[in-house]
Amino acid sequence: MAFKTDAQISQFGGKLYKLTHPSKSTKTDMNVNVFVPPSKNDKIPVLIYLSGLTCTPNNASEKSFFQYFASKYGFAIVFPDTSPRGANIQGEDDSWDFGTGAGFYVDSLQKPWSENYNMYSYIHKELLSELAKEYPQLDFEDKISITGHSMGGLGALNGFLKNPGKYRSVSAFAPISNPSTCPWGEKNFGNYLGDNKLEWLKYDPSHLIKEYTHENQPDILIHQGAADGFYAKDKQLQPENFVKAAEESSYKGKVDLRVVEGYDHLYFFISTFTEDHAKFHAKHLGL
Amino acid sequence: MAFKTDAQISQFGGKLYKLTHPSKSTKTDMNVNVFVPPSKNDKIPVLIYLSGLTCTPNNASEKSFFQYFASKYGFAIVFPDTSPRGANIQGEDDSWDFGTGAGFYVDSLQKPWSENYNMYSYIHKELLSELAKEYPQLDFEDKISITGHSMGGLGALNGFLKNPGKYRSVSAFAPISNPSTCPWGEKNFGNYLGDNKLEWLKYDPSHLIKEYTHENQPDILIHQGAADGFYAKDKQLQPENFVKAAEESSYKGKVDLRVVEGYDHLYFFISTFTEDHAKFHAKHLGL
Repeated sequence: MAFKTDAQISQFGGKLYKLTHPSKSTKTDMNVNVFVPPSKNDKIPVLIYLSGLTCTPNNASEKSFFQYFASKYGFAIVFPDTSPRGANIQGEDDSWDFGTGAGFYVDSLQKPWSENYNMYSYIHKELLSELAKEYPQLDFEDKISITGHSMGGLGALNGFLKNPGKYRSVSAFAPISNPSTCPWGEKNFGNYLGDNKLEWLKYDPSHLIKEYTHENQPDILIHQGAADGFYAKDKQLQPENFVKAAEESSYKGKVDLRVVEGYDHLYFFISTFTEDHAKFHAKHLGL
Repeated sequence: MAFKTDAQISQFGGKLYKLTHPSKSTKTDMNVNVFVPPSKNDKIPVLIYLSGLTCTPNNASEKSFFQYFASKYGFAIVFPDTSPRGANIQGEDDSWDFGTGAGFYVDSLQKPWSENYNMYSYIHKELLSELAKEYPQLDFEDKISITGHSMGGLGALNGFLKNPGKYRSVSAFAPISNPSTCPWGEKNFGNYLGDNKLEWLKYDPSHLIKEYTHENQPDILIHQGAADGFYAKDKQLQPENFVKAAEESSYKGKVDLRVVEGYDHLYFFISTFTEDHAKFHAKHLGL
């Protein structure tokens, strides 16, 4: 399906495209930003950046500073939205951490959410496939990696672990790492997936990593701010649970969790460590 | 007078302080952000960044990405506000390009504005003097440079030219370069300074540079986006007038105006060329 270009902005020698397109998965129009670097490569590698709660494609485009490094290393970036918008489901705008802006990157099983809240299929299937047609110079087939922040970190880890071999590498900033056992997970998985907790495990990285058996087992990089209230106080993130699960799996020793003193949960934390993540993915993408 | 710390945020190994303080110049509380880099230098050089129309100290703090380079080179950054806020003058909130968020970095001569709208004295005298007491490790005496965007580029050029020897270097992003002869200048200078156009010339870089005689004549760096509507269509910026004036002065050959194809007026333009300006000032600050 066609993309409509809402804006085309010069940046770092490349272009940031602000796009809208109709989605079959969500049955709504979806917004997505795509940064194409000034590369002469005819197959440009791609990094998917999944944003956190409440964010649109614009927040990370404006504040993560990923484009500076994407331009330097020569990879494209896709910034998807975090949920359908305007699905007109009763209750979708009642709280900041559920519904609009909080799709949790799952395919919903429960009505009324299952009609539109299918962000898993939207991101990992529909969006990438549609963008591959729109941008033939980007290598959505072979050289694609994924990262994300908070809820988007959860989405990135799940996208990697549930699609062995699809993504060359995965990293995350303060990811929700064990959603089956935290308040955000309980609220969102309960609503989107229902009461059967076996369904929750299908979107829980701390479970999925134990079952991961693919030969493609690149190191996983995670940054976590020690002064992040969602981590230290609210126990929403629990990256240590993911490391522990990895230690009990074939991924033993390959999750590089860096807890950084003094850093919080927000974009100043992300932009500080963007360089590390950009270098990490550039290496895995052969750049 | 004391600064109140509203937030203290870890970033790039340093700290971004969001401060509020009572100002004698504006007779209001003023907001300012200060980034202190992770430097072992006991006299850390300082860059002042003056923002454009409507901006608070937060916009550039979040979107210019200057802190990445400040941390790398070892200079501090001061992000002042663009006007008094809440002065409660009739009409100050009627338009986006005059009054609140549009102090134009002048000392007003006309009532009712002259009571509060004294951003020239606030920035170049009061604020720097107060910050020097608050941050003794920052070198506000000897190693200080200035830059800015649009209206802030005007403020930076004026601050440099009106205070010979005070600032080691000046640069600007899409500055309002000849305010006596553009609609924004006519509107704001008319209101703040009155009908006597001789008063306008005291805040017009394209006039001031002709009178500049100080021995400190560092190159001046200016970036201008060719696709910037305020430049190409509205003729608000006119950097060529500044270059022409410089050519007729002792500054001949020392203004490096770079008109960059495809770039607009906004933060994606700024952040693209932040690295060039950071390097430029680092050199002049002896870093």
